[in-house]
Amino acid sequence: MSKGSTKPPSGTRDFLPVDIARRRYVVGIIQEVYEQYGFVPLETPAFENLTALLGKYGDEGDQLLYRLLHRRDALKRALDKENVTEADLADLGLRYDLTVPLARVVAQYRDLPRFFKRYQIQPVWRADRPGRGRFREFYQCDVDVVGTESLVAEAETLAAIAQVLERLGFDAFELRINHRRLLRALIQTARIPLEKEQTALVAVDKLDKIGHEGVIKELAQRGVAVDASETLLQLLEATQGKSKSARFSVLRERVTNDDGQAALTELEELFELLEQTPAGAHALLSPELARGLSYYTGPIFEIIVEDLAGSLGGGGRYDELIGMFGKNPIPAVGGSIGLERILLVMQERGMYPPLPGGPELLLCWFGVESKDAVAVAHQLRAEGLRVETYPAAVKLGKQLQYAAQSGVPFAAILGADELSSGTLGVKNLETGEQQKVTVEAVKTIVRA
Amino acid sequence: MSKGSTKPPSGTRDFLPVDIARRRYVVGIIQEVYEQYGFVPLETPAFENLTALLGKYGDEGDQLLYRLLHRRDALKRALDKENVTEADLADLGLRYDLTVPLARVVAQYRDLPRFFKRYQIQPVWRADRPGRGRFREFYQCDVDVVGTESLVAEAETLAAIAQVLERLGFDAFELRINHRRLLRALIQTARIPLEKEQTALVAVDKLDKIGHEGVIKELAQRGVAVDASETLLQLLEATQGKSKSARFSVLRERVTNDDGQAALTELEELFELLEQTPAGAHALLSPELARGLSYYTGPIFEIIVEDLAGSLGGGGRYDELIGMFGKNPIPAVGGSIGLERILLVMQERGMYPPLPGGPELLLCWFGVESKDAVAVAHQLRAEGLRVETYPAAVKLGKQLQYAAQSGVPFAAILGADELSSGTLGVKNLETGEQQKVTVEAVKTIVRA
Repeated sequence: MSKGSTKPPSGTRDFLPVDIARRRYVVGIIQEVYEQYGFVPLETPAFENLTALLGKYGDEGDQLLYRLLHRRDALKRALDKENVTEADLADLGLRYDLTVPLARVVAQYRDLPRFFKRYQIQPVWRADRPGRGRFREFYQCDVDVVGTESLVAEAETLAAIAQVLERLGFDAFELRINHRRLLRALIQTARIPLEKEQTALVAVDKLDKIGHEGVIKELAQRGVAVDASETLLQLLEATQGKSKSARFSVLRERVTNDDGQAALTELEELFELLEQTPAGAHALLSPELARGLSYYTGPIFEIIVEDLAGSLGGGGRYDELIGMFGKNPIPAVGGSIGLERILLVMQERGMYPPLPGGPELLLCWFGVESKDAVAVAHQLRAEGLRVETYPAAVKLGKQLQYAAQSGVPFAAILGADELSSGTLGVKNLETGEQQKVTVEAVKTIVRA
Repeated sequence: MSKGSTKPPSGTRDFLPVDIARRRYVVGIIQEVYEQYGFVPLETPAFENLTALLGKYGDEGDQLLYRLLHRRDALKRALDKENVTEADLADLGLRYDLTVPLARVVAQYRDLPRFFKRYQIQPVWRADRPGRGRFREFYQCDVDVVGTESLVAEAETLAAIAQVLERLGFDAFELRINHRRLLRALIQTARIPLEKEQTALVAVDKLDKIGHEGVIKELAQRGVAVDASETLLQLLEATQGKSKSARFSVLRERVTNDDGQAALTELEELFELLEQTPAGAHALLSPELARGLSYYTGPIFEIIVEDLAGSLGGGGRYDELIGMFGKNPIPAVGGSIGLERILLVMQERGMYPPLPGGPELLLCWFGVESKDAVAVAHQLRAEGLRVETYPAAVKLGKQLQYAAQSGVPFAAILGADELSSGTLGVKNLETGEQQKVTVEAVKTIVRA
């Protein structure tokens, strides 16, 4: 038998019971809220055909895909070739995100509802360099509305996300909202050439991190004139510190192009919808919000929590992507909650309620037979209690010591007296208090 | 954008909402019951170091492992070698079962409880030939007690499994129980040489499928004398049609060796324990039960459901396996429920209760603004209802048509009259019945 390391592979984690209790709590709330908003669950396989994955995530993404090595004859044939390449060795890859699988599912199943509102909470795998809070196996938590251009889709996606965050105990969070076409209009208003749009988006996205001067410098390095960059940043910064409605007025005045004005009109409508929902109190027009990904086509958003660098998630409208496996584009709005980040923040900030989990009671026994212990354990479980039975007839002190170590809150002691009288000695392992009660009464003490 | 197939890869499945509802129902019951029996959840990464996996599942298992192809420099180095082999191309493999990860976890975390009772419900991957009910990605559902030689572990594992099956609606099932050392004693009593033990186990395991003559023939082909095989089968068949206690008497008389008698004593004790639990009514001593795997060391069992070929799961004691990553053997008892099989059987037999899932109500609206629809949807959700909002202001007939197609049970109609009076027209899409009620009263109709 090989020994070797018993750690999980680099960038992956074992989830022990306490971790799972926290995950289940958070995921349970997400599921419940999303289902109230009419979303239904979807799960897809861990691996996809490489033809479905390659080219969807850019060159860097292709590099980070895990590929499944061919086996047996297929592998032999590949290795017999003269110049073997990566492409010869695999035709399956691990799931890299939840959007490409959604697009595949939408193309495959013709009887899905015309408006397909799905959520999906599953792990994805990326061969990235692991680091603090960055894993090679991590959960994504996506919610998407496929099949409509209506702003109701944006509004309800944002409302559901806001309600999840409120239910989890986040209160001071902002839903920063922008519009990809407003941003383009601002870039045009600043007279930055359209071919530099993506460059400008990427730089503006870093405004939080590298500051005004940093953005100007980065844009200059990439061939954007300093005065144009300055104009753009002044446009973006003109709304800072202003109220919601003032932000709209400022932009209305300064944006010189029709498409930008139309995007502002859409955003005004969206904000009016959000006012009717839990998202309203958190929504803020943020013209500097860029979200690097090039596939967004309409409103975009990001979740920002007070005193926390980076975002807890984000999303937007992407009308060109979901149709990738078919002939026609299919409009869609999606949002993603950063589940791993939320779990980490909630733990650091002590936001979890007491979570049930693990046995509530250890049944200790002495001077009776093991069948008596098993019978009493069954009675206690029939009451709904979570019960562990000490497996062997060892000294009571040793059993109680195990109870204390294992962290179970109560021990129940079964001796010959208790057996004949249908009682148990129930010991609260935190207070040390012990009382003798009937088996039927144990639950009221343990669940008090 | 590549087109290609949009099916999930061969041997894998997409789980659409109705599939997920069924899985969640079954998994929810399994979790609840296992936790009542003191088991706690564990989850491990999708991939493990190949050093941890290879050699654990026999040669065939090694062939069925999915390996993750090296990337970038590591791949380049491998391909630069003169005679590239499979071993050069990967050092990670997908999870093949849940037992090896459990053994790794037990070796890795020193502060686990001394008696580690864990359950684990996760997919595993095997590059097997796909077929009816046989997948390359499928869920396993394991429950194990690590760290004790006490028969209480067997009893509670079997009790939990029996209670799961009863809760799911299975009533006519048998828990067939044998003991690996009793089986060995019977083989010895029949004067089959000990070096043929594994051969005999494998052949006996097929008794159900290939019958008495088939087993004799297979054993003869593998060098076991026909009279010895006949003796063995007569021993195994001597208990058929007999009562529980008669089975024990018959075997007590016929088994000539001490170890076999000791195994019978253990089984008697186990049956006495099981009598105190939900497993008692289903337990049956079955000396012909072999379970092919060589790693069992004590009691073994299998779940057999009336009118269903094959088993719904099984398990047993395996005291030599969990210590594989450490220095010393660690005793353990495990059971596995065939989750995929259970889901299939329950569907075929109509055993699912009505499962909640999907929106309960589609909100249709006309002659009002979208913000009014969003506001009313929010009111309905605040009541706890699962509500889908029709995304656009199209003709009411088209909205109701969508409601009928999507399978939602109720439509709520919001027009200008309803808006001003705080009411909705609620239509039962099954009966066609429609009534006008206040928004607050909608829930009582929908959940009636």
